Amino acid sequence: MGVARLDYFSKMLFHAKTVSGHDLVIDADPASGGMDAGVRPKELMLYSLMGCTGMDIVSLLRKMKVIENMETFRMEIEYEQSQEHPKVYTKIHLKYILKFNGEPPREQVEKAVSLSQDKYCGVSAMLKKAVPDFTWEIIYE
Amino acid sequence: MGVARLDYFSKMLFHAKTVSGHDLVIDADPASGGMDAGVRPKELMLYSLMGCTGMDIVSLLRKMKVIENMETFRMEIEYEQSQEHPKVYTKIHLKYILKFNGEPPREQVEKAVSLSQDKYCGVSAMLKKAVPDFTWEIIYE
Repeated sequence: MGVARLDYFSKMLFHAKTVSGHDLVIDADPASGGMDAGVRPKELMLYSLMGCTGMDIVSLLRKMKVIENMETFRMEIEYEQSQEHPKVYTKIHLKYILKFNGEPPREQVEKAVSLSQDKYCGVSAMLKKAVPDFTWEIIYE
Repeated sequence: MGVARLDYFSKMLFHAKTVSGHDLVIDADPASGGMDAGVRPKELMLYSLMGCTGMDIVSLLRKMKVIENMETFRMEIEYEQSQEHPKVYTKIHLKYILKFNGEPPREQVEKAVSLSQDKYCGVSAMLKKAVPDFTWEIIYE
């Protein structure tokens, strides 16, 4: 069992020393009574997802020995939220955007993404249960 | 529709300028090939949850005019993860821990937590679908 803790300070400002030992400041925007001193709570779910699957991709492409020619790698999520409370993500479309020096190793990239989405990434596995319209694609630049 | 983006740098290091405009560094621990320069992806889900419901509690207690006597407020999550891939949270127990100057306004706090959990907090609504053993309690210090 692990324990995570978040402390309230003032207005809408919260601070954590995360389980991994890093500082994390969470705050609301001024329209919601905050001071915009840190990230919004709900957007953290999107970065949790991209970080989780992104690390899988890097690990797998390294094992497949095709990462040396990868020049850039980023992810983007196109998301939609419900208008009514509770405001949940109703759509998540995750783009894996990669640029390689020379011809991309398409087979290995596709394999890595499938392994992450179907087997390894715990955050994806959880969010798929919560967000019915959950899709992804691979884009080469 | 919104767009969130996360960029890969090197080893296991990722960086985002979040949708709200803040820097977020995500990294793995050295045992996983990282440099421990930032938070872990999956722990972000826990802080997303605590930040979301924590802001609800603060807003609601403020509206109920009982926040003036609140001396401290923090949340803790006791969590368990599966051993097999994908490693998901199998248990989340969320503690709302509050200290008031004088007698706690128990009725209002209970009402605020119920409203957040049943109506307002989008992150809770999503995680309850993904984590079957999801519970909470209120503790006064």
